Amino acid sequence: MAGDAGAGFFHPGGGTGHDEILADAPSSAWRTLKPDDLLVMQLPQGRVVIELAPQFAPDHVAAIKQLAAAHYWDGLAITRVQDNFVVQWGDPAAGTARQHPLPANLPRLLPPEYTRSTQDLDFMRLQDGDIYAPAVGFVRGFPVGEDPRTGRAWLLHCYGMVGVGRDDPPDTGDGTQLYAVIGQAPRQLDRNLAVIGRVVQGMDILSALPRGRGALGVYRNASHRTPIISLRLASSQPAANQPHLQVLRTASATFANLLANRRHRANSWFVYRPDRVSVCNVPLPVRFIPPKP
Amino acid sequence: MAGDAGAGFFHPGGGTGHDEILADAPSSAWRTLKPDDLLVMQLPQGRVVIELAPQFAPDHVAAIKQLAAAHYWDGLAITRVQDNFVVQWGDPAAGTARQHPLPANLPRLLPPEYTRSTQDLDFMRLQDGDIYAPAVGFVRGFPVGEDPRTGRAWLLHCYGMVGVGRDDPPDTGDGTQLYAVIGQAPRQLDRNLAVIGRVVQGMDILSALPRGRGALGVYRNASHRTPIISLRLASSQPAANQPHLQVLRTASATFANLLANRRHRANSWFVYRPDRVSVCNVPLPVRFIPPKP
Repeated sequence: MAGDAGAGFFHPGGGTGHDEILADAPSSAWRTLKPDDLLVMQLPQGRVVIELAPQFAPDHVAAIKQLAAAHYWDGLAITRVQDNFVVQWGDPAAGTARQHPLPANLPRLLPPEYTRSTQDLDFMRLQDGDIYAPAVGFVRGFPVGEDPRTGRAWLLHCYGMVGVGRDDPPDTGDGTQLYAVIGQAPRQLDRNLAVIGRVVQGMDILSALPRGRGALGVYRNASHRTPIISLRLASSQPAANQPHLQVLRTASATFANLLANRRHRANSWFVYRPDRVSVCNVPLPVRFIPPKP
Repeated sequence: MAGDAGAGFFHPGGGTGHDEILADAPSSAWRTLKPDDLLVMQLPQGRVVIELAPQFAPDHVAAIKQLAAAHYWDGLAITRVQDNFVVQWGDPAAGTARQHPLPANLPRLLPPEYTRSTQDLDFMRLQDGDIYAPAVGFVRGFPVGEDPRTGRAWLLHCYGMVGVGRDDPPDTGDGTQLYAVIGQAPRQLDRNLAVIGRVVQGMDILSALPRGRGALGVYRNASHRTPIISLRLASSQPAANQPHLQVLRTASATFANLLANRRHRANSWFVYRPDRVSVCNVPLPVRFIPPKP
């Protein structure tokens, strides 16, 4: 890095060896994202793609698919950007007079899908410990917490994870207000909200949006909001417009190698090797694939 | 929050009770930041203020003060913004032909001030555990790790912390390349770099800068860089231009109350109370004070 980037450039999160390990991954280590589980949000700055996690919040994901099919978010906006916390989008006037009516058959209150049974989950466990959860790891690429005593599992509020805003209990929202984590993982929210997926493309856009100056990072002036051009399920789009993305399987040997590389940092730059890795400090490799001819 | 902000707005990091606890703080719970330990970086978007930590990296801080006194960074730029990692600034051509010469008496290589003795540190310890360090807590507002076996302590790479970039060992840099953490705490860097302070004002500016598209988030095009109008020690500025800031003392009863509030989240929004708080998930309250007449 020294020669390339100039004095004082230190190695980033990936670290030496990361690219080489990825380059050696067999094609079976990659999972192609299904268009029926991808949300595509078109903003003036570019495209944000979210992989949904129906296995963790099925009713929330179903409501979100229904809202996307109704073009509910098209013409609404990103209304809140709170530094080191979340970006939130939806109807700016949700609390008073809605700009967009809800689809007729949308459930008004969703069930509290904050945790689910650990049954049938293919859990890749981390051995490094965690402050907030008895056990942590990954399920199909998603960071997950687990409590063996209760047999429950839940998605973690790591960077880039997407959830559904709600008011006080027992109101768990209608799925129309979505947020993405843009700072230090707010793990205190785990088990308190329905986490429904993760941004797989476009975090660099969301995280660089101007911060709101009002309470909770809400924009004081409507002109500061970022308009949502469209938010649709990828499968509803023409094939030519669908994202063609793969993520590394967290159950693969390649991912295990990446984890070991991140944990031990066996290169000369590190004078102190951490020998630990935190579950929210493991980025999931994503790559573009050419569309099928 | 429901009535104010509309359906689906959830409580932010601070949470219920935070403002009330702060409002009750006696004036003795606040520490006024000394102009001789404050860097002021003027960007086109506004002002970024950094509190230096000479007790952790005295030689690095002395070099930085020397560079600021020489107006070294004025006219240089923010050259690198890597999403979920760091913002870095300095001489874009440091590796090849420098744009700005170094002050004549600047040490060419600084000592590895990555850890220091725990002696004479007024350590406010957290009891919640940590993945990366045997013990963690706060010293004069700064998040700190500690190893009782070695008697060493070090500043943590939490959101907003500022460090000095370096190349491979044993080169530890000359203090001209500075970075601030803008994402999930890259704790693997702890004990590997000299951390010299923390942004106390202007993180919302740094974290919203456009991400660089080159390797390591370096801007490919010089026109994408953010110019540094000036970077000076506050004490070198006219009194009217100096920042007048106070931070909450982390040794105060008020801070202990805030910590307990964050840990237990005893309000009705939380259906699951975390009963834990991570050291990098504790924001330090900062407030403006009127300048002395």
